[in-house]
Amino acid sequence: MHWYFVAALLTILTSSQGILTTLSQSDGGYKYDYATVPFLAEVFKLLVSSFLLWRECKSSPLPRMTTEWKSMRLYPIPSIIYLIHNNVQFATLTFVDTSTYQIMGNLKIVTTGILFRLFLKRKLSNLQWMAIVLLAVGTTTSQVKGCGENSCDSFFSAPIQGYMLGILSACLSALAGVYTEYLMKKNNDSLYWQNVQLYTFGAIFNMARLLLDDFKSEFEQGPWWQRLFNGYSITTWMVVLNLGSTGLLVSWLMKYADNIVKVYSTSMAMLLTMILSAYLFNFRPTLQLFLGIIICMMSLHMYFAPPSMLVELPLTVKATPKNLAEVSVHQTTDS
Amino acid sequence: MHWYFVAALLTILTSSQGILTTLSQSDGGYKYDYATVPFLAEVFKLLVSSFLLWRECKSSPLPRMTTEWKSMRLYPIPSIIYLIHNNVQFATLTFVDTSTYQIMGNLKIVTTGILFRLFLKRKLSNLQWMAIVLLAVGTTTSQVKGCGENSCDSFFSAPIQGYMLGILSACLSALAGVYTEYLMKKNNDSLYWQNVQLYTFGAIFNMARLLLDDFKSEFEQGPWWQRLFNGYSITTWMVVLNLGSTGLLVSWLMKYADNIVKVYSTSMAMLLTMILSAYLFNFRPTLQLFLGIIICMMSLHMYFAPPSMLVELPLTVKATPKNLAEVSVHQTTDS
Repeated sequence: MHWYFVAALLTILTSSQGILTTLSQSDGGYKYDYATVPFLAEVFKLLVSSFLLWRECKSSPLPRMTTEWKSMRLYPIPSIIYLIHNNVQFATLTFVDTSTYQIMGNLKIVTTGILFRLFLKRKLSNLQWMAIVLLAVGTTTSQVKGCGENSCDSFFSAPIQGYMLGILSACLSALAGVYTEYLMKKNNDSLYWQNVQLYTFGAIFNMARLLLDDFKSEFEQGPWWQRLFNGYSITTWMVVLNLGSTGLLVSWLMKYADNIVKVYSTSMAMLLTMILSAYLFNFRPTLQLFLGIIICMMSLHMYFAPPSMLVELPLTVKATPKNLAEVSVHQTTDS
Repeated sequence: MHWYFVAALLTILTSSQGILTTLSQSDGGYKYDYATVPFLAEVFKLLVSSFLLWRECKSSPLPRMTTEWKSMRLYPIPSIIYLIHNNVQFATLTFVDTSTYQIMGNLKIVTTGILFRLFLKRKLSNLQWMAIVLLAVGTTTSQVKGCGENSCDSFFSAPIQGYMLGILSACLSALAGVYTEYLMKKNNDSLYWQNVQLYTFGAIFNMARLLLDDFKSEFEQGPWWQRLFNGYSITTWMVVLNLGSTGLLVSWLMKYADNIVKVYSTSMAMLLTMILSAYLFNFRPTLQLFLGIIICMMSLHMYFAPPSMLVELPLTVKATPKNLAEVSVHQTTDS
């Protein structure tokens, strides 16, 4: 399977995620406990990966599985980072409005590039760095508030804590991604075995979060397992399955491609969501969306196109070795 | 003199042009006839070029001057194109508002690239084409109306004639530039001699325009030469001198650099004007100005940086010929 096929699928599923989540709301709010969605998505990913691992174990050669504690103890780390990240996200939103929050979210494209370079020691060309910055600029451009929109004058007016937390959030998000890539590529273990470890801890941490929420609310609504499926509709289940599937695709990309591919996928998904929203919910697309799409397409081409294709000048007359040989023959006979 | 020095000077003078023109207005309008400004600027350029040519004629070797009619008859053509362009500009503004007009003006960056390729047969790499498109996108981004601004919802709401005329205007502007470059590079004539021919026709055509305006208004305000300096302030004279100087610099660039350099200069000037305006007139710079600047800087780097600098991966250990020689020596002794 080619990585760009997986990346394209991830783009499509991620962009449906936004639309499905919007559709799963009723009267502008969630009838179900949204915190249960990531938990169930982790369980879904765990079940799928366990099944695939089991199938792999029946075939030969047997999948490579490192079962030392020294290796396994690294797998809860991404979950821990995501847990901290979620709390920072929550704190950020108490300081800034959602549109400023959304714009700051684009910073994670740049922080991912930086941590990718620092922690994974991956080299990027000057042009690829520019492409990463342009991707962040492009997604931001598409989100610039058009004139005439309601909530205005918001980006430069949040308290400083909001911006600091936004930067922290971008770093944590990038760190979780880069760390996961490190884990997946560390050895030649079976992807499914790595997934099983990752999602076991994922499910445990999400469960702990639900339990913590219960303690915080002093079990007002009863323990989480009693209200797990409360208010779930078909759309909510689709949100769960979709979130789980994107998680599995991301995991595949972390092992066989890299974080930058993932970042491009999800950024393109963001633009696709905006185009689809304009179409589905009858918005008029803004000039800035149009500009953002051009910038991101240029960035994509700059990052992934072969360098020779980018910098070579087109030739009108091809100087083939044959022609050159002829020229030298003529010169020889002339002299 | 290096072209980038001239280009930087052009950027500074062009950006002052916008600010000086604003300062030369009183009560939101011009007290003087604005059509006299380009005429006087042409006269200024003609005087400067004549003086420089005269000085060159006194030295040896004598400047190269082609005085055949076959060559000289080409020099009024840029003036004719500019004359048509001015009228198209005027017509465009009857269909679209100034901000839409301004945004469409960025199209001339792309049309210049295209005509540069088609008429001057200049080859551009894939990356340079992307840089040109990004420059246009960047300048457009910086001009996107922020939320909360007064005249809104304007860009996609003009009549179709407005957009067609905008495209025509962009093509004419590019054509004038590309044709001038062709003229200046056609032979090795002295730049000052070429300028004298160019500006003689420029002055004549501008004079004709003033006379035409007089006929249109049936000499209500008297002939143009009687009201030439009416309402002129020091600032108005500075506008004239500034416009003349930028013209001379553009002419230099057309001979010794090219249209793309000129387009970069004037685009950067536009951004500089916006930064200076924010500073001088106490605007709060918008997020889109900030994004536009990043995009244009990337574009500048993409277009002018040496390709090897852009696409090469940084090396940790340098494989110098010496090291390689040592390796092969070791291999030889081992075997």
